[in-house]
Amino acid sequence: MQILDLLFGKPLASSEERAEQIGSTAGVGIFGIDALSSAAYGPEAALVLLIPLGVGGLHLILPVMAAIIILLMLVYFSYRQTIEAYPHGGGSYTVATENLGHGPGLLAAAALMIDYVLTVAVSISAGVEALVSAVPAMQPYTLGLCLGILLVLTIINMRGVRDAGAAFMVPTYLFVFTLLVVIAAGLARAAMSGGHPHALVAPPPLPTTATEAISLWLVLKVFASGCTAMTGVEAVSNGVMAFRDPTVKNARRTLTIIVVLLAILLIGIALLCRIYHIGATPSDSPGYQSVLSQLTFAVMGRGWFYYITMGAVLTAVSLAANPAYQDFPRLAKAIAAHNYLPHVFLLRGRRLLHSHGIYALVVMSAIILIVFRGITDRLIPLYAIGVFLAFTLSQAGMVVHWRRHRGSGWVRHAMVNGVGAVATGITLLIVLVAKFVEGAWVTALLIPLLILAMAMVHRHYLRVTRETANPAPLRVENLRPPLIIIPLDRWSRITEKALRFALSISPEIIVVHVVSADSAGRSIRDDWEKRVAAPLREAGMKIPELVDLNSPYRFVLAPVMDFVLEKERTLENRQIAVLVPELVVRHWWENLLHNQRANVLKLLLLLKGNQRILVINIPWYLQRG
Amino acid sequence: MQILDLLFGKPLASSEERAEQIGSTAGVGIFGIDALSSAAYGPEAALVLLIPLGVGGLHLILPVMAAIIILLMLVYFSYRQTIEAYPHGGGSYTVATENLGHGPGLLAAAALMIDYVLTVAVSISAGVEALVSAVPAMQPYTLGLCLGILLVLTIINMRGVRDAGAAFMVPTYLFVFTLLVVIAAGLARAAMSGGHPHALVAPPPLPTTATEAISLWLVLKVFASGCTAMTGVEAVSNGVMAFRDPTVKNARRTLTIIVVLLAILLIGIALLCRIYHIGATPSDSPGYQSVLSQLTFAVMGRGWFYYITMGAVLTAVSLAANPAYQDFPRLAKAIAAHNYLPHVFLLRGRRLLHSHGIYALVVMSAIILIVFRGITDRLIPLYAIGVFLAFTLSQAGMVVHWRRHRGSGWVRHAMVNGVGAVATGITLLIVLVAKFVEGAWVTALLIPLLILAMAMVHRHYLRVTRETANPAPLRVENLRPPLIIIPLDRWSRITEKALRFALSISPEIIVVHVVSADSAGRSIRDDWEKRVAAPLREAGMKIPELVDLNSPYRFVLAPVMDFVLEKERTLENRQIAVLVPELVVRHWWENLLHNQRANVLKLLLLLKGNQRILVINIPWYLQRG
Repeated sequence: MQILDLLFGKPLASSEERAEQIGSTAGVGIFGIDALSSAAYGPEAALVLLIPLGVGGLHLILPVMAAIIILLMLVYFSYRQTIEAYPHGGGSYTVATENLGHGPGLLAAAALMIDYVLTVAVSISAGVEALVSAVPAMQPYTLGLCLGILLVLTIINMRGVRDAGAAFMVPTYLFVFTLLVVIAAGLARAAMSGGHPHALVAPPPLPTTATEAISLWLVLKVFASGCTAMTGVEAVSNGVMAFRDPTVKNARRTLTIIVVLLAILLIGIALLCRIYHIGATPSDSPGYQSVLSQLTFAVMGRGWFYYITMGAVLTAVSLAANPAYQDFPRLAKAIAAHNYLPHVFLLRGRRLLHSHGIYALVVMSAIILIVFRGITDRLIPLYAIGVFLAFTLSQAGMVVHWRRHRGSGWVRHAMVNGVGAVATGITLLIVLVAKFVEGAWVTALLIPLLILAMAMVHRHYLRVTRETANPAPLRVENLRPPLIIIPLDRWSRITEKALRFALSISPEIIVVHVVSADSAGRSIRDDWEKRVAAPLREAGMKIPELVDLNSPYRFVLAPVMDFVLEKERTLENRQIAVLVPELVVRHWWENLLHNQRANVLKLLLLLKGNQRILVINIPWYLQRG
Repeated sequence: MQILDLLFGKPLASSEERAEQIGSTAGVGIFGIDALSSAAYGPEAALVLLIPLGVGGLHLILPVMAAIIILLMLVYFSYRQTIEAYPHGGGSYTVATENLGHGPGLLAAAALMIDYVLTVAVSISAGVEALVSAVPAMQPYTLGLCLGILLVLTIINMRGVRDAGAAFMVPTYLFVFTLLVVIAAGLARAAMSGGHPHALVAPPPLPTTATEAISLWLVLKVFASGCTAMTGVEAVSNGVMAFRDPTVKNARRTLTIIVVLLAILLIGIALLCRIYHIGATPSDSPGYQSVLSQLTFAVMGRGWFYYITMGAVLTAVSLAANPAYQDFPRLAKAIAAHNYLPHVFLLRGRRLLHSHGIYALVVMSAIILIVFRGITDRLIPLYAIGVFLAFTLSQAGMVVHWRRHRGSGWVRHAMVNGVGAVATGITLLIVLVAKFVEGAWVTALLIPLLILAMAMVHRHYLRVTRETANPAPLRVENLRPPLIIIPLDRWSRITEKALRFALSISPEIIVVHVVSADSAGRSIRDDWEKRVAAPLREAGMKIPELVDLNSPYRFVLAPVMDFVLEKERTLENRQIAVLVPELVVRHWWENLLHNQRANVLKLLLLLKGNQRILVINIPWYLQRG
């Protein structure tokens, strides 16, 4: 326990829970980290696809980024309304379930779960890419670094609500601040040099000839990849209840600040890439440099500011994985509360966390990181689908919500959400088609599988509830002691203990004794009259029946099982309790010295038995020594 | 079951056992295979060490082989006496235990177990080497072939007593016959050519210059390796009772035939090597050719007879592993009967075999083969120690035997065995010293470890017997029903079943209910009065006590355990039965949907509980579907 305490902190009593109450400054730090850090990989994901176009491809980045920012604005207005309508937290799962029903709700749930897992994987891998850009010697250790950061985040989060959260404000603000400085300085130098500034550290040159022609298909793919820059925008609407009064107003102001900052970062990065001729480099080749790294080099040179910026990127982007550590368990709990996931997600652990949700998230993220070797580029195609599916369902749900409540201005509200839903829905289709072969098919396959699994879980819980629900009061009639069956081999203190227990709870006892040609030594039958029957007769008590079971094939358990099942068949409405004497040893290896018949018999009785057969363990403890 | 029947045959009833009664012809085939096939690797093991001496080394092989044959004769006369003195089977373990005591008996037991495992490993690897000599393309698959043969032998042997045995006569005789033909033809051709015959297929030339000088140390090592040619000589004395009347006479005749044949083979092989200038080739280098293969090539040429001979060698040498499949389980049973090995070795399986002995033998042989990559050369240094240790202990035991009985001519008998014991004892020392670094240390380490393990097993069984032995008759006083404790959560049909069972066996029931801040929904307390208390009151029955256990840290099992242990402390001389309701699901994955508290509680009660705490499982079966 001490190592657990050291790593994760002492257990917290339920009474130690307290609500965090934050304002918009803290809100931007805490809820903005996911959305804002997307600026580190969204533009890069788009630029990677422009590599074959060479230097000419840079012309495309501005229009594509503009389209993404328009989409971002539509989503922004849509989520403002969600915050207002769901001040207690309006995650996509809640909104979709309440307004569209359980089917779309499950679809949103599956999309979100995958989304959170990929947020963790992508954030960590993008963070490591920043590190590898600054220190190229570390590239061979990409996967190991990813898993290491995953472990550190997990330990931090397992310490629970009291410690996490606030620590994440500083990196967010540092990230935004350094990037804004780079953008401002870059634009200023461009303005001063008449639009053709000289890069302080030249980026790797882009090929001047294109190996591929511009096509609508390519543009769609670039757009689809760039859309990953929008991930995390929904975070505020999930956590409205964390804000202090006036809750809705604080939350909306937070969302506004986040979206504005994100838009500035995205457009700023796109502009600088255009001006300084910076494109992406393939991330799985040696000499990889992330776009932000090239950009900072070009504008600020190879100085201390470069390292601060890269440090901020690394920290912020890695920590962007952190909200998922709260959101995923919360989502899993909500789904489990509707009986669509195992109830274990409802339990809170020693530090008041839903620890099992964290375990599930970490295991799945680790699998994803390992399968895709921790390379962001390969993860991006999987990522956007979950995000946009959740966006679409949430906003479609809001349309129904407004229509159902028909409050003042409901048509306008519904219009805003409707436009958002349509825009993100179209984006979803684009992403699905444009990225299908590269990896979107994985997500497209996982979502129905997850839904199927959740449906099976739900069906199981329903059946258990139906079969065990008991509207009637306790039946008190027919409370007859059970028939007791004890398999015994020879007379010993263990045998005596079992017999005494049987005699204390029921007058009807059958002792069965398996006889085979290999049986050797004294059997219970040799001692029966003198050791068992005589004392009972003297005390005027009923003597148990002793039954020999012949076993021509030397099996021991099969005859006992047959006997028990036969009794169960012939005695109607009778409980049968099988007493299993069991030797409890003090060292694990001692178990090898005794046949495990007691355990196998218990298992067989559980597997082949039925409602009327019970098992009673009679443990015999060897003394220590 | 059907696949088991197909592979291993249908189960045999104990009544289907029958004794095999054999004469000396069958005896040589069955008991001789191990000893005779040693001719295939013994001389080669000696020749390998002569490689550095080049062609000059061949002068040494005849004197060394002569020494080995003298030793063989001493052992022969010694075992003739053992057969007479122990007509019911005088294995080294029996002889050493009866005459020298349990300590030397255990030493013999450990040596023999290791000996049997190595017999299997060496026989199979030597058989595969014969195959690889004939078909060099198969050399890369040495280990796979070894394990494959091990598997086939295991399947054959698991079919049991009725099928094994007789099938092994043909290969033994074919092996001896073909080698005798080769030796006779080789000597005849040598005689006709005046001692300098021309090899039909020339063996790989031996280097004419030595890279090492002849030394006493080298001679000792050659002798120690060559001694592996004597392994298996003790087989007849283990199985005397298998012979038909006159038992002793038949067994002795069999031993005589085997030893004479073995001596002829060994001396013949040594002579031919000398005459045809045949030495060993390193077995782990490409182009490896076993000595027997070179010899047959040289004498008989590359014709059909060569392939028949190699086939006979492969079959006989591999099948030499077979006697260990009977001897090891028989030995393990004898040791287990003295409580020095787990009693599981006493049980006979479905085909009347002591199957667990076979499992143990096969697993250990497989490990040895894998560790040493199936290469005979590396196994030889481990092998001879066990054999000669057993020889020595057995003969020393015989000396004590004669001295104790002091029958007519006991001094002469004791002398014969004494000379054998001294000779094999000295050989043992030579082997240990000469082979220590090459691998004998492994055996020298394993033997004391095995003895230690057996001593611990013995101590455990003694303790169990002492603690559970019950000389007294059943105590019939103080047969009070147990106090029953049931942890319950909410009212359901499962709850009702548990309560009804409790009510049927005892009037004293405590229902415990764990309350934590996370508890949600209706609890048992909400339904208690109406569903439980009221009907019982109406029926005039005692109402169980309902106890709330507070759990500030949300742990569920810890409060229940504390409560049970506390009750156990305060109530003296009282049995406490903990009822554990348990949901039995129909598919394995459904277990993931329910907390495993019932199982963990059972485990905790077993670990932390004591003699007065019992566990009663109340299973609730979900309906199929």
